[in-house]
Amino acid sequence: MRVSKLFTKTLKNAPADEVAKNAQLLIRGGYIHKEMAGVYTYLPLGKRVLEKVMQIVREEMNTVGGNEISLTALQHKDVWEASGRWSDEVLDVWFKTKLANGTELGLAPTHEEPLTKLMKNYISSYKDLPVYPYQFQIKFRNELRSKSGLMRGREFWMKDLYSFSRDQAQHDEFYEKISEAYDHVYERLGIGDITYKTFASGGSFSKYSHEFQTLSEVGEDIIYVHEGKKIAINEEVYNDEVLADLGLSKDELVEKKAVEVGNIFTLSTKFSDALDLNYTDESGASQRVFMGSYGIGPSRVMGLLAEHFADDKGLVWLVNIAPYTVYLVSIGEKGSAEADKLYEELTGMGIEVLYDDRDERPGAKFADAELLGIPYRVTVSDRLVESGEFELVQRVDGAQETLTHEALVDRLKQL
Amino acid sequence: MRVSKLFTKTLKNAPADEVAKNAQLLIRGGYIHKEMAGVYTYLPLGKRVLEKVMQIVREEMNTVGGNEISLTALQHKDVWEASGRWSDEVLDVWFKTKLANGTELGLAPTHEEPLTKLMKNYISSYKDLPVYPYQFQIKFRNELRSKSGLMRGREFWMKDLYSFSRDQAQHDEFYEKISEAYDHVYERLGIGDITYKTFASGGSFSKYSHEFQTLSEVGEDIIYVHEGKKIAINEEVYNDEVLADLGLSKDELVEKKAVEVGNIFTLSTKFSDALDLNYTDESGASQRVFMGSYGIGPSRVMGLLAEHFADDKGLVWLVNIAPYTVYLVSIGEKGSAEADKLYEELTGMGIEVLYDDRDERPGAKFADAELLGIPYRVTVSDRLVESGEFELVQRVDGAQETLTHEALVDRLKQL
Repeated sequence: MRVSKLFTKTLKNAPADEVAKNAQLLIRGGYIHKEMAGVYTYLPLGKRVLEKVMQIVREEMNTVGGNEISLTALQHKDVWEASGRWSDEVLDVWFKTKLANGTELGLAPTHEEPLTKLMKNYISSYKDLPVYPYQFQIKFRNELRSKSGLMRGREFWMKDLYSFSRDQAQHDEFYEKISEAYDHVYERLGIGDITYKTFASGGSFSKYSHEFQTLSEVGEDIIYVHEGKKIAINEEVYNDEVLADLGLSKDELVEKKAVEVGNIFTLSTKFSDALDLNYTDESGASQRVFMGSYGIGPSRVMGLLAEHFADDKGLVWLVNIAPYTVYLVSIGEKGSAEADKLYEELTGMGIEVLYDDRDERPGAKFADAELLGIPYRVTVSDRLVESGEFELVQRVDGAQETLTHEALVDRLKQL
Repeated sequence: MRVSKLFTKTLKNAPADEVAKNAQLLIRGGYIHKEMAGVYTYLPLGKRVLEKVMQIVREEMNTVGGNEISLTALQHKDVWEASGRWSDEVLDVWFKTKLANGTELGLAPTHEEPLTKLMKNYISSYKDLPVYPYQFQIKFRNELRSKSGLMRGREFWMKDLYSFSRDQAQHDEFYEKISEAYDHVYERLGIGDITYKTFASGGSFSKYSHEFQTLSEVGEDIIYVHEGKKIAINEEVYNDEVLADLGLSKDELVEKKAVEVGNIFTLSTKFSDALDLNYTDESGASQRVFMGSYGIGPSRVMGLLAEHFADDKGLVWLVNIAPYTVYLVSIGEKGSAEADKLYEELTGMGIEVLYDDRDERPGAKFADAELLGIPYRVTVSDRLVESGEFELVQRVDGAQETLTHEALVDRLKQL
């Protein structure tokens, strides 16, 4: 993409009411635009980052047998009344609206109920189990406060997978498998080392659920971390009983702030009871379907990555998340001609290049490259053209090299 | 994808209240699920078709310089009051809701206003123009009636591109370019021959807009078609003045029912006036930005394709829209072993195969292949394995061939 064809620009300032560092950086870089607290538009660069996060999650969900679908935001109240979650007292984040004829509707804050009802069309025998539908969908949650940028949205992207199993044993097998898939997701996102599988409350139907918590000074959750075992306990269940259960003692654990980047949850038969979702077993007996739910918020993850991979000059994306791998800067007339050629060559090789072809001071281009956090900057100037060389600078540490054309292309090919 | 891993099944019947053929077929095939009138969940096969339609549109929008973004559903009323469209009398399809603190919000039925406001951050000089942001987004429209399946949704996917130009001349140039891009979209969707660029009302700011209307007996629009010139006139502007304008006479035109599959619209300065979107020209003078909007509904298009490409056995997708290219049927024990190998081989080559590996009667598998409308069916039976052959059947005309392994693979590679 040529910067001259990209409609966004870097901005001097984020809106005054934006207090979260992730949103400040992303707004200044032109990645996102704030519509209102907790509601952000994804601009071209931001859309690319979000898609890359989602693609990593998608690949891992497909690996464990996920079937991608797309449920609806508009919801009839009947299925939610069946589970007892239509009431604003029970679920306090509803946005509600009405059809023209006055019928009340809700905007889905999650999708257990409509999916459970839908599955009644497709599950009748033990042979139909297990199955794992999932989706990336915009969720609506009417949060009282939303001051954490992309990390707590009122309208945000969620990946939610639901498992439908014949019994606890079949469920448990998948639960372990998807737990590992979640580990892979966070490793690929570059936060594997600071993300802890965390024991949390299981609700009414199972003893524990598990959260994936990433250590962060801006986190809203408190967890107690065992670094050696790479596990943690959420403060909500940090008590003697749970410590005994897990064979841990308080003096091995360290209190940390963290951001919940995913959770996996045993639902048992809560929703299949409410909505009468059954299967027939080998003996012909009717049995309740055993369920689980598994969430990751790609927009929250994107906010966390922006918060974590940043320095005083701006964002510092890893290659597999960055909107583009290379920020190509042209300086001068000969530099521009040479940069045009290099841009065509690199994009032809499938390398993702953001080409700053503007008629701007080099300093301004370099500052934009840094704020945007593109991993590699390649500079082509009149001076460098004369010596047949290219300057390569790494965003993460500023390491600078001068390379021949061949050496440069070789290097970029390997990223 | 193995059918045994796909959670959907073909259904005997669509819901009794579903009167549209497109939705009946898509529901019976397990492509979509009806949440309520005009609100459909996309199941795995349906999601794939929708994505293929969207990818064709995306490629054509990128070709004319589009920048993909994603705006928000939740909307503050201020920008809509500025344009006079917040009132339910002016825009009669609003879904409205409220923040927890009581602030009224709307669910975007379209996005001119928020995007125009957003662009104030990025447009200040004539050098910033023209630009073409676009998105695929779920739109919410509180339609009184919604009985046409995917063709008239209350919650549906829309591609909307907006052009920001310095003046009418720069606008007109793009308007012609995107009109051609729309032609390419409909050609690639296989409906180029029955889709007419149709003169329609231009609203208050320009004489005409243009709709792309596809002939269909279930269409809700009436158009008057000139087959030779491949243009049409919407009945709303079918009068002597317009006929004279276009140099057409009534006896050359034929009345037809049609479905609007896209529209392109000159907005002029309607929204830049309302929201004060300006740029500075070469002389330093402030000028209003000149706008246009360009819509295609991928979910409506999918409904139209399902309606149009179908016969009494079910759907008949074209290869580039079909969720899978090949429906692989195994029959018998040796047939299954051979089909397993063929499935791995074909998917390894990048061919999209839906492999019916179920323990089912051949007749049931064949009927599903037909209902689902997968373009090519390949059968591997015990009998065929003995002769080292494969049966290939085309969905569109039932043409049947018996091929060697090499000939089969060669043929499928070329699709």
